[in-house]
Amino acid sequence: MKAWRNPYIVSFAQAVAGFKSGKQTPRDFLELCLANVDKFESRVKAFVTLDRKAVRKAADESTKRYKAGKPLSMVDGCPVGIKDIMATKDMPTQMNSPAFSGWQSGQDAACVQALRQGGAVIFGKTVTTEFAIGFSGPTTNPFDPKRTPGGSSSGTAAGVGAGMIPVGLGTQTQGSTLRPASYCGAVGFKPTIGSLNTAGIHPLSATNDHLGIIGATLEDVWRVASQISLGIGSPGYGFMNGASATLPLAVQPQKLIRLYTRGWTEIDSNTEEAFDEVIAAMTKAGVEIVSKNDDPRVAAFEDAMERDIDTALDIVAYEMKWPFQDYIARYGKLIGKRIHGLIERANQMTPADYVSRMEKRTAIRAHCRKLAAEIGADAYVTLASSGPAIEGFEFSGSRTFIVPGSWLGFPAFSLPLMQSDGLPFGLQLLGIDHHDGNLCSTAHWVMQELAGD
Amino acid sequence: MKAWRNPYIVSFAQAVAGFKSGKQTPRDFLELCLANVDKFESRVKAFVTLDRKAVRKAADESTKRYKAGKPLSMVDGCPVGIKDIMATKDMPTQMNSPAFSGWQSGQDAACVQALRQGGAVIFGKTVTTEFAIGFSGPTTNPFDPKRTPGGSSSGTAAGVGAGMIPVGLGTQTQGSTLRPASYCGAVGFKPTIGSLNTAGIHPLSATNDHLGIIGATLEDVWRVASQISLGIGSPGYGFMNGASATLPLAVQPQKLIRLYTRGWTEIDSNTEEAFDEVIAAMTKAGVEIVSKNDDPRVAAFEDAMERDIDTALDIVAYEMKWPFQDYIARYGKLIGKRIHGLIERANQMTPADYVSRMEKRTAIRAHCRKLAAEIGADAYVTLASSGPAIEGFEFSGSRTFIVPGSWLGFPAFSLPLMQSDGLPFGLQLLGIDHHDGNLCSTAHWVMQELAGD
Repeated sequence: MKAWRNPYIVSFAQAVAGFKSGKQTPRDFLELCLANVDKFESRVKAFVTLDRKAVRKAADESTKRYKAGKPLSMVDGCPVGIKDIMATKDMPTQMNSPAFSGWQSGQDAACVQALRQGGAVIFGKTVTTEFAIGFSGPTTNPFDPKRTPGGSSSGTAAGVGAGMIPVGLGTQTQGSTLRPASYCGAVGFKPTIGSLNTAGIHPLSATNDHLGIIGATLEDVWRVASQISLGIGSPGYGFMNGASATLPLAVQPQKLIRLYTRGWTEIDSNTEEAFDEVIAAMTKAGVEIVSKNDDPRVAAFEDAMERDIDTALDIVAYEMKWPFQDYIARYGKLIGKRIHGLIERANQMTPADYVSRMEKRTAIRAHCRKLAAEIGADAYVTLASSGPAIEGFEFSGSRTFIVPGSWLGFPAFSLPLMQSDGLPFGLQLLGIDHHDGNLCSTAHWVMQELAGD
Repeated sequence: MKAWRNPYIVSFAQAVAGFKSGKQTPRDFLELCLANVDKFESRVKAFVTLDRKAVRKAADESTKRYKAGKPLSMVDGCPVGIKDIMATKDMPTQMNSPAFSGWQSGQDAACVQALRQGGAVIFGKTVTTEFAIGFSGPTTNPFDPKRTPGGSSSGTAAGVGAGMIPVGLGTQTQGSTLRPASYCGAVGFKPTIGSLNTAGIHPLSATNDHLGIIGATLEDVWRVASQISLGIGSPGYGFMNGASATLPLAVQPQKLIRLYTRGWTEIDSNTEEAFDEVIAAMTKAGVEIVSKNDDPRVAAFEDAMERDIDTALDIVAYEMKWPFQDYIARYGKLIGKRIHGLIERANQMTPADYVSRMEKRTAIRAHCRKLAAEIGADAYVTLASSGPAIEGFEFSGSRTFIVPGSWLGFPAFSLPLMQSDGLPFGLQLLGIDHHDGNLCSTAHWVMQELAGD
């Protein structure tokens, strides 16, 4: 198959050898990014806050460290976009909400602290949908200004897709990292729930909020995730499985479980054909693909997901009671309709309702682990979105294919391999919790085999 | 035995029947509290922020609700002191740190939100040690102004002990709820880790930070804990075991495991005699007390705790990296020496060191559960502090007896039953995780049997 190629992408991971040899400097690299900002930002609108003077200063300091042979970490000199729900001590954090216009946290989120300590260039704040769940911001898709970039990590994904940054931070509570990554032709990764530190990120739903990374290449994403993991740690887990300055080796999977999910009803024939082509290429390479059509155990798992997946949003809504009940009381209509609706949903739930939803989630997690073990599968494979970005901005696209991974809390990648009429969309690989490094090995193989990366 | 009696205590739980019958109003009750503030606050210094006008207004609104027969919840009209590391939208949150002087969060912590929605009178902000772990604030012990009230929830415990509030919120990462409750002659309770929502409380250590409650009586404590639990829920757990407007029934335990712990080397003969008297009274009532002297399995558990308990502080220190690494970089000497020391400790740990400490913690938790099940014990019993409050303020007293419960994350009470030379100290009951209601039934029986409550 012929994999889709993003013409704009800039990769830090590919540039860093040049920083070490002296062929290029972090400042040179930053200027490439800034040139793309000059070229695309007026159309793409990925950034809320961007201080050119500050980022040039940070890149110059990194340049000095490389010249002295002393880079601080695997991300020294890497420009990283920060979703505007993440606290930054030197920039406002505005949540795309008029209630937080100009708001300053005064401190860095844990992930920002770890990147800054590692010498990364904190490049600016990227557009989010309102509190990462409400109305959209002004960002457009890098490949078609009439289309959504996907939400909620809209600015991060569009910034990477348009080559304005090599990598950026997002979050995913339902579909907010993989969907925009898919739409913007970037690699998207959300690790196992809890394995990257989310402290200092405005919460939606504590047991569903994942820190996500969107980048030019798998290695850009892995470096940033690993630096956050090893730099600050994560309460309870310590670090993300496989965290390392080196990308996990490419390992061909023996078996992958193909999931249809409810999303399959949403796709058109172009999307289906592109996905079939990927499946065929993997089969040709020797990977065994097992679906509900081949094995009743897979069918039973798809049925179990279909039965209970609507309870995933109940958990999100219930956990949003703090602080959104209070925000609605204080800010009223400044808070968007969708959030009002979710809090109404939460207010109708009893604590016991919440616990019953948690029990269903625990059960589906066990089911998903057990199925992979029984089949002997390395991972699950499906689409990351129901096709390329849709037109318009009010709706940031379907998250049907991604909600299962968020509900499970298991690691997932969106790989920018497919296209339909010149617009990209991603292949989703979904792994088992706390096997993030293993899943990255599978993703690495897929990118090598299918895209020659 | 003759249980110690706190002469100052005011109980909301005992007053609420009068609110319903019309004999007394929440405003009347508040005035009793404010009268004690007038009497004691200049000496005890429990409060950082207290707005008499605002609390009178809140109490008057509650009075109207009772008159209309429509109290909002089990805590409507209850004055509650809020530890000054907990966000409050209408008052500063200053952490007893010059770096946070005058700092305003702009929102309520989850626990405050739940209490406010339930009609509680948010009475004011109580003195904490610096970020709940560093240098002491100005609070003195209600029973001797030359002695510490205990830390870190100093103001909450002293406020309750002196009858200025019936109940208040604290936190416990190592010993910060049970120690000051013990020293101030109040009931202290820290529920199972995670079972009460800690969102919006300045973090020290995410997997060790417990929300704690200190109150005049067991029922005051239980009402507040239950309202927080049922009002806002807790991510992952939903609600605290046994949460209810009604205090769990008193149930006599069949067996209690008596722990000596490392703390036993710290106590004097008065303390030992008072504790022996409590044990004798329970034995007389028919409770079987099992200690390391009676059963080698208990001895093995005490040995296992002794071997690994120093790793508990490593976990705290490592999780404090965010945000304290950054605070130290920015605020330097404005941050106290103890915190500097903890961050130095953390900086010497690798992520793998942290994980190894977590594994020890997981093991001790399993050991503690297994031992109770094998012995058939309802709970563990020991001291809550190594005697009454010590003189001076630099050191807020030994936490040796309490660290095990914090490390385990299991529920624990301090019951104000004992005294030495007129100074109170507490009996500690330690239960099994997510059996908070069961432990409260045991505590209820102990208070009935030993104090006639």
